[in-house]
Amino acid sequence: MLPPDPLSLQTALLLVEIAAIAAFALSGLMEAAHKRLDVVGALAVSGLAAFGGGTLRDVLLDRRPFFWVEHSGYVWFLLGLGLITMLWLRRRHLRPTRRAIVWPDTLGLGLFTATGTQLGLQHGMPPLIAVLMGVITAVMGGVLRDIVCNEIPSAFRDHRPYALCAFAGGWAGVAARSLGADEAQALAAAAGLTITLRSAALWGRWRVPAWPAD
Amino acid sequence: MLPPDPLSLQTALLLVEIAAIAAFALSGLMEAAHKRLDVVGALAVSGLAAFGGGTLRDVLLDRRPFFWVEHSGYVWFLLGLGLITMLWLRRRHLRPTRRAIVWPDTLGLGLFTATGTQLGLQHGMPPLIAVLMGVITAVMGGVLRDIVCNEIPSAFRDHRPYALCAFAGGWAGVAARSLGADEAQALAAAAGLTITLRSAALWGRWRVPAWPAD
Amino acid sequence: MLPPDPLSLQTALLLVEIAAIAAFALSGLMEAAHKRLDVVGALAVSGLAAFGGGTLRDVLLDRRPFFWVEHSGYVWFLLGLGLITMLWLRRRHLRPTRRAIVWPDTLGLGLFTATGTQLGLQHGMPPLIAVLMGVITAVMGGVLRDIVCNEIPSAFRDHRPYALCAFAGGWAGVAARSLGADEAQALAAAAGLTITLRSAALWGRWRVPAWPAD
Repeated sequence: MLPPDPLSLQTALLLVEIAAIAAFALSGLMEAAHKRLDVVGALAVSGLAAFGGGTLRDVLLDRRPFFWVEHSGYVWFLLGLGLITMLWLRRRHLRPTRRAIVWPDTLGLGLFTATGTQLGLQHGMPPLIAVLMGVITAVMGGVLRDIVCNEIPSAFRDHRPYALCAFAGGWAGVAARSLGADEAQALAAAAGLTITLRSAALWGRWRVPAWPAD
Repeated sequence: MLPPDPLSLQTALLLVEIAAIAAFALSGLMEAAHKRLDVVGALAVSGLAAFGGGTLRDVLLDRRPFFWVEHSGYVWFLLGLGLITMLWLRRRHLRPTRRAIVWPDTLGLGLFTATGTQLGLQHGMPPLIAVLMGVITAVMGGVLRDIVCNEIPSAFRDHRPYALCAFAGGWAGVAARSLGADEAQALAAAAGLTITLRSAALWGRWRVPAWPAD
Repeated sequence: MLPPDPLSLQTALLLVEIAAIAAFALSGLMEAAHKRLDVVGALAVSGLAAFGGGTLRDVLLDRRPFFWVEHSGYVWFLLGLGLITMLWLRRRHLRPTRRAIVWPDTLGLGLFTATGTQLGLQHGMPPLIAVLMGVITAVMGGVLRDIVCNEIPSAFRDHRPYALCAFAGGWAGVAARSLGADEAQALAAAAGLTITLRSAALWGRWRVPAWPAD
């Protein structure tokens, strides 16, 4: 088998990233519609959902520039996506959108976990902290979205494995690196396990245990 | 016409800044009273409303010291203002205060937008990001105030143009700079447009569209 | 009287720190149980309660590495404590735990106030800002815990002196340093006064005044 062409790999990764950011942003728009925010609120919550996790990770790692500063095209993309969505979805039901973003959201969970964990390792973090950086990248955007919308974060109470999949996937990335894999392989291991677990959890309706159980 | 005396300009700017900080702090005190916080909570929310936006901007720009660290007199001012307000307003209605702070709040919106945008440009941010830094400086103090008070931020759902005025004003500051204006002129352009738009919006009861409209 | 053996002093301090972190973490677990979070949410809120205040202080001081990065054993400790607590408290009442953590929580309030204030001084902060860093270290973990759980922070509305004790204790630490005390003495002064005041407040059911009083 030939190694994949690095250029088409780059393009594929970029497309996955754009799809993931769009999915996270749409989750924010949907929550904003549910809470009857105005257009400004919808755009703010959408941006927070898409960029909040990576930004928090970068603040914790003391890493600059943020990726949305380096690539400010992403911010324009988000503003455009938000405005187009708001015009296009004026009178349609939002439910189909909610289902349509489940898979790009899963891709995003995997991708952001993988890149967050590797960035943590690159900044010299111990393994557990690097994995937490991956989880924070993938999960905290949604957490901040829910806090601003005055809800207990769904990642903390919906009893569906989400952060847990990221946690396991992050360890796969750490393990791959310590077994001598290069960075691309470690990214693939982390994203692969996260996406597999999350898909299985969605498919099999796995439940995170409640507490206190009685 | 003679150029303005730089010293009296400085003094005027300082007075506007103090009035704006006082207006933001009072908005926090009012929200705290509404939510029946204790004295500690009222002072904390008041400080968050006044300094939260600028502090978040400085964390994002990785800029130190914060202006309330460099000028810790502002923190004393805030503590004093809070205690005096709480003693003085014990038995009076808060409604007149709410109306009295609309205009200093508008000044603050303009001033903080203008300085935040220029600081963004000074730190080498692309134009859109610099404008967002201006909006964050002006708006996020109130957003944090509302989050701590367990409300959806009013800037995101009251359908009144607030962040939008800051957004437009920030672009005026960027445009002025790129057209060769010096920093004072760019500050004036940004603050001027923000304040004009906000005043017009208050006067004309402009509305930000709701979404989804149906 | 002989000076205390520095090694046993270190051990004592470490034990106090562990007890304090455990108390803060348990306060998060209890809040999570009250809000019916899942296991992921309970661990996240517990970690936020234990490490949120110190992390926010370090972000504000631009100080790295965070203490939970430098000593990532604390994160393992927290995960273990959380899981064991959740298994062990499955069917028991949580009320006895709430009472059991009042005293370690008071120790933590004193310890974190003292260390936060001294770190502020070491980073060249003016006295008031150093004291605020102490208060933030001790109080903001609980504030973030309550915000994530969609409650107005109890430190801001329960009318019991908590942040006020930390504020007074921080000043004792600043005063001790400016009177020529070494760092250990300043830590003892700050922690001692904070713990004394908080104990007296609990004992005597002191109340922070409400506002507006009418």
